[in-house]
Amino acid sequence: MALLQEFAAIVGKEYALTGNDTARWSTDWTGKYCAQPGVVLRPTSTHQVSQIMTLANAQRQSITPVSGHTGLVGGTYAPGGVMVSLDQMNTIHDINATTRTAVVDAGVVLSSLHDATDAEGLIFPLTFGARGSAMIGGVMSTNAGGSNVLRYGNTRDLVLGLEAVLADGRVVDLMSSLHKDNSGLNLRQLLIGSEGTLGIITKAVLKLAPKPITYATAMVAVPKLDDALTLLNRVQDATGGAVEAFEYMPRHYIDVHMARVDGAREPFDVPYDVNIMIEVATTTDTDITDALQTIMADMMNSGAVLDAVVAQNETQRRAMWDRREAAAELTFWRKPIVDTDVALPLDLVGSFLEQAYAKVVEADSGAEPFYIAHLGDGNVHYGVYPSSDDAALKDKIVEIIEDVVESLGGSFSAEHGVGLSKLNTMRRRKDPVALDMMRKIKGVLDPNGILNPGKLIPD
Amino acid sequence: MALLQEFAAIVGKEYALTGNDTARWSTDWTGKYCAQPGVVLRPTSTHQVSQIMTLANAQRQSITPVSGHTGLVGGTYAPGGVMVSLDQMNTIHDINATTRTAVVDAGVVLSSLHDATDAEGLIFPLTFGARGSAMIGGVMSTNAGGSNVLRYGNTRDLVLGLEAVLADGRVVDLMSSLHKDNSGLNLRQLLIGSEGTLGIITKAVLKLAPKPITYATAMVAVPKLDDALTLLNRVQDATGGAVEAFEYMPRHYIDVHMARVDGAREPFDVPYDVNIMIEVATTTDTDITDALQTIMADMMNSGAVLDAVVAQNETQRRAMWDRREAAAELTFWRKPIVDTDVALPLDLVGSFLEQAYAKVVEADSGAEPFYIAHLGDGNVHYGVYPSSDDAALKDKIVEIIEDVVESLGGSFSAEHGVGLSKLNTMRRRKDPVALDMMRKIKGVLDPNGILNPGKLIPD
Repeated sequence: MALLQEFAAIVGKEYALTGNDTARWSTDWTGKYCAQPGVVLRPTSTHQVSQIMTLANAQRQSITPVSGHTGLVGGTYAPGGVMVSLDQMNTIHDINATTRTAVVDAGVVLSSLHDATDAEGLIFPLTFGARGSAMIGGVMSTNAGGSNVLRYGNTRDLVLGLEAVLADGRVVDLMSSLHKDNSGLNLRQLLIGSEGTLGIITKAVLKLAPKPITYATAMVAVPKLDDALTLLNRVQDATGGAVEAFEYMPRHYIDVHMARVDGAREPFDVPYDVNIMIEVATTTDTDITDALQTIMADMMNSGAVLDAVVAQNETQRRAMWDRREAAAELTFWRKPIVDTDVALPLDLVGSFLEQAYAKVVEADSGAEPFYIAHLGDGNVHYGVYPSSDDAALKDKIVEIIEDVVESLGGSFSAEHGVGLSKLNTMRRRKDPVALDMMRKIKGVLDPNGILNPGKLIPD
Repeated sequence: MALLQEFAAIVGKEYALTGNDTARWSTDWTGKYCAQPGVVLRPTSTHQVSQIMTLANAQRQSITPVSGHTGLVGGTYAPGGVMVSLDQMNTIHDINATTRTAVVDAGVVLSSLHDATDAEGLIFPLTFGARGSAMIGGVMSTNAGGSNVLRYGNTRDLVLGLEAVLADGRVVDLMSSLHKDNSGLNLRQLLIGSEGTLGIITKAVLKLAPKPITYATAMVAVPKLDDALTLLNRVQDATGGAVEAFEYMPRHYIDVHMARVDGAREPFDVPYDVNIMIEVATTTDTDITDALQTIMADMMNSGAVLDAVVAQNETQRRAMWDRREAAAELTFWRKPIVDTDVALPLDLVGSFLEQAYAKVVEADSGAEPFYIAHLGDGNVHYGVYPSSDDAALKDKIVEIIEDVVESLGGSFSAEHGVGLSKLNTMRRRKDPVALDMMRKIKGVLDPNGILNPGKLIPD
């Protein structure tokens, strides 16, 4: 293929991989989107990415950008296609402790950035289970969330500037490190979360935060989710908004964790239904553990907290986090599965869980829900193991869950993105005027439709 | 004019104002953009706004949206044109203390929202001098900033959802109250800050924050701006990021304040060059005043702080704020003036001030700079009184300031927006690829170019 040779000439032959050399990009973490790409190009500079897109645009060749390849929605699925991997562009250009900003390439691994900022007494707050493989480019293009969005926001809240290559090969320079910049339409926020459909993000300026010196981490059992929300608000107020994580693990999650993970332990002496993991962090020498314990004791007196265990050391804290971070593994080991990633208004998570359970079981009496929630954000990873692998049944379950979400003002897509897996849902659930706006923007910024076609925006 | 009658039929005759009835919309705060509109339509519902735009689009009639009419950049300038004022759509639909969100119409006055949230023990944090007139719609369409962006972010960080009417009259429903919502391109952030060029924002879901119970407010004199940045970072770390305002007032600002405001006082017993106002706020019973004083005492020992006065009561605190909030009045009383609103990387504000002064005075030896800064955001309101009202001279001074800003990686537009006043600057300073993207997006979402034409995006 002559085009392949032209691409190879841009990046160098050793960085144009085909056949078995593409193995790393042929797999998929969820097992649902495994496919061998035709070629994986690994540019080493923005200029090379620009040359690739210029050529691709002239030849109407579709391009699927990829970085860490840890997505859960098939956003990088490209059977036989041309993938552009940012992994060779992995320089941390600057970490500025005075302005608390970092300048990084798209191929920097999230945990590498964590290590580099740690050395300066700072953190890049965004974190999630796949941090050892996920790269900044993918994190930005999917607007990744995670466990401490509650305190620091989603990816889009942590990006001050970026550089991207457009469909026609032009480079747009939005590399600002400014906290205020009202100079025209916000193209930065348009590119973040666009899943590679509007441009390939090549570089970024990220916000850093001071590294906490003390953590208070606890498991708390409460009677109902409403009590959990009261706990959250009280701890937020008492600590000046220092809650970093507020995670809900229902009884069945604990049971599966106990059954499947060596050394797993019950969080409490007796089993409870509603188990919350809370983590508060501070950069000051305030005794946040004391503040947390005071509130929990008070709520225990009124019956709004049933039990509580505070981590006494880093080992105990790590064990609490390990239980939470086993979520993906505990969810996906069993097949068939219908997995969703929904968001609800904070006070309607309980209603959602009740209604979804009743309606799913009504449609499939053998179905078993399995879920975990970033409760502080209203984000529920709601999975269902249906009684059979029947496609129509699985689709029906998805529709039932979506109906409940929609009726409660929620979103069918919270933090994993749309990719391929939620394309049908986008088509049937997103406001039609909003969809039309997205199609028009896509059409005018990528008129040949070559950037990650078939993802995010349904035809 | 038949069209006028059709518009009047939509909103009712009493809400279609012409002639002297449009006086309120014919003035301009800065005095630079005074012009009588042909008609001011005051719809009372989203449906009416939609009908207006449907008709306008069919007739290729330009529309300029307006709400509080307090902008500083001529964004609502519409001589002889059709203005759509959102002021009659002013209902606060909901304030939810559990989820800490508010649902409001575009015409709600910012200070009315402050009052309503205050009653619930919450705050909508965004605030600035014009809060008694500015309305949510304008605040959102300009992505307004203000004095506590440092802690709570710009407007775009405080909006969870919105509703808008597009150029063709269709209503886009993005009324989410969710903290995570990755369902397609981020149209919300595209509409926020678009200055009425892409749609008319009619409704919003806003984030609220707990109301602080204690404030520690102080005036601090430091030798250099670098010392101020050290102070900021130390107080942020010691209080868990609780600094709400960090304002820089140079010597000449204090002098003008003393000369022009009755009862104005020197902040310290002796005059200093670099005067900082810092405010820390907390929702807890932590003694933040003590934390602040400890740091200031420590820095005084090392010579990095020269003097400090902590407000002992609300009257003293109010006096400090009054000094700061007199800025617009103290800037615009004298003519001619070249006023800018620039942002710099936090550690380069000092370099900017030095370089800008040297170069402006080199070009016009009689010029006198006058400025004040939201130092915590790197935002400088840098004005110059030139030696004459010569247009070429004034333009040259703007160019000189912009050159310095650009060379330091800053932005020519921080928080006031672009409107008409910075259109030339957009043309010559913004990345040309970014400008092209903006024009394409505008062209496809408003193909007849009827929404606030001639603003924000230069031809």
